[in-house]
Amino acid sequence: MSDKIFVFGHQKPDTDAIASSYGFSYLSNHRPVGALNTECVALGTPNEETQFALDYFGVEAPRVVTSAAAEGVDTVILTDHNEFQQSIADIASLNIFGVVDHHRVANFNTASPLFMTIEPVGSASSIVYRKYLEAGVEIPREVAGLLLSGLISDTLLLKSPTTHATDHKVAEELAKIAGVDLQEYGMAMLKAGTNLDNKSADELIDIDAKTFELNGSRIRIAQVNTVEIQDVLSRLHDVKVAIKKAMEVEHYDDFVFMITDIVNSNSEIVEIGSHKDKVEAAFHFTLEDDHAFLAGAVSRKKQVVPQLTEEFNK
Amino acid sequence: MSDKIFVFGHQKPDTDAIASSYGFSYLSNHRPVGALNTECVALGTPNEETQFALDYFGVEAPRVVTSAAAEGVDTVILTDHNEFQQSIADIASLNIFGVVDHHRVANFNTASPLFMTIEPVGSASSIVYRKYLEAGVEIPREVAGLLLSGLISDTLLLKSPTTHATDHKVAEELAKIAGVDLQEYGMAMLKAGTNLDNKSADELIDIDAKTFELNGSRIRIAQVNTVEIQDVLSRLHDVKVAIKKAMEVEHYDDFVFMITDIVNSNSEIVEIGSHKDKVEAAFHFTLEDDHAFLAGAVSRKKQVVPQLTEEFNK
Repeated sequence: MSDKIFVFGHQKPDTDAIASSYGFSYLSNHRPVGALNTECVALGTPNEETQFALDYFGVEAPRVVTSAAAEGVDTVILTDHNEFQQSIADIASLNIFGVVDHHRVANFNTASPLFMTIEPVGSASSIVYRKYLEAGVEIPREVAGLLLSGLISDTLLLKSPTTHATDHKVAEELAKIAGVDLQEYGMAMLKAGTNLDNKSADELIDIDAKTFELNGSRIRIAQVNTVEIQDVLSRLHDVKVAIKKAMEVEHYDDFVFMITDIVNSNSEIVEIGSHKDKVEAAFHFTLEDDHAFLAGAVSRKKQVVPQLTEEFNK
Repeated sequence: MSDKIFVFGHQKPDTDAIASSYGFSYLSNHRPVGALNTECVALGTPNEETQFALDYFGVEAPRVVTSAAAEGVDTVILTDHNEFQQSIADIASLNIFGVVDHHRVANFNTASPLFMTIEPVGSASSIVYRKYLEAGVEIPREVAGLLLSGLISDTLLLKSPTTHATDHKVAEELAKIAGVDLQEYGMAMLKAGTNLDNKSADELIDIDAKTFELNGSRIRIAQVNTVEIQDVLSRLHDVKVAIKKAMEVEHYDDFVFMITDIVNSNSEIVEIGSHKDKVEAAFHFTLEDDHAFLAGAVSRKKQVVPQLTEEFNK
């Protein structure tokens, strides 16, 4: 085993997963005291939004690994996740040196003490930014740009209710270092992630999908970002076919598909499954042709999952 | 439910559990931004060492609680622990606002993101001290004295291998604020905790005891500090009776009892249970009359738990 430490975000990496791991790896290697020998890797290829950010700031995508042991590495640092099922395949047998995350803690355990920082803020990138300030390490322009991209991505340009009060200042400061206009760059990056034309319906419903157990029911909740809800709705027939196929294979009781308008901060909700009544009650709307408009909703974590959880528990 | 937040250390509190919770509660209530309404409570009464520190710095012991809900409190901050079985009885139904700890992470999960800081340093009190510096909050003399006591206790006056490179400076700075001589105060406090004569065997094995789940087995690991191992070993018969009684009541598979010589930094290990072979393999020694000498071992966390964990996972 080498003394190298891998730093990576979660499987199916989004921009915050890539950005926070890239930024934290750089910081770890450049600390004035206690510098480490880390390499930023990724558990998957960047999506189009992330690739836009990487290209914009001239950073090469981290190489993709699927096992640390296979690379001769036994020690890792996780960013933007902690749950083992979202991590590298051999996570349970590795030495976890550190974690930087902004999610709930679950299905996570270590044999020894470690460095772990969790904060309920808008992005893991926000926390990594604060770690640079604490360590007194200068942030290169491209790192600041990536961290800014991670924050913009996770908060939909600071409009999601997951945005923390402190994130606004973080975004301003990072935009300054990165030399970009926050609004202009942010909207361009988000739009780069909404290019759904070359995605099949099967791919659409799997871009950002998570499975939840709600009071014994197995619910899949997927989300896509768009600048024009109607563009996605025009493919509703194919999307429904893809959903029904996935439901049969994976035994979901319901499939909730959020089509989120990132410009106006609303979503269209498509619901297929056996709990249409509960979905209608949770969001106080009436489904027509299996879908309905949900004004102001952009966050699955804050505006969809808790409401469904409460309704299913009734 | 009130808006009050309880801050507490682990069950069977040691000096670091009491000190870190007392110090973090004070800090949380005095932050210039985002101050909270917290109360430091404890999950048990102070041991003699802790009582020495409390008396020395004129601090009243935190009141003992056994359930948060019973006190009308639904939100808590944990210090010096994270594993649920070491926490308050109703922990699984509470909102965990934050954690400050220096142990491994296990049997811990939350429904939502939280504030969590884990560092592999000598004491939770060391981390709390740094949080004061970060927040720019002045540390009262008695808080500094308690935090120093927590650090001295957990590191056996900076001699345990759990001592982190940064802890020496923390101890110096805290001793200065507390107005004590580090060595003189430290040895006096540690010795106050080694008065075992007036403890029954039942009490001995419960002074500082934690339960661990190792690969499906339920292992109790207790530790006492002494200036003379032989004084405790002379009571081995009674200790074994007490251990066997505890094992029956609590269904432990094994009971490991560390008798630690704080002057010479060694331990005698007593093992009762169904995995003697694993304990012997973990420590490369042979038990005679259920006990063996473990040279240089003073830290349960660094020199006992990881070795047992590895052996039980084989």
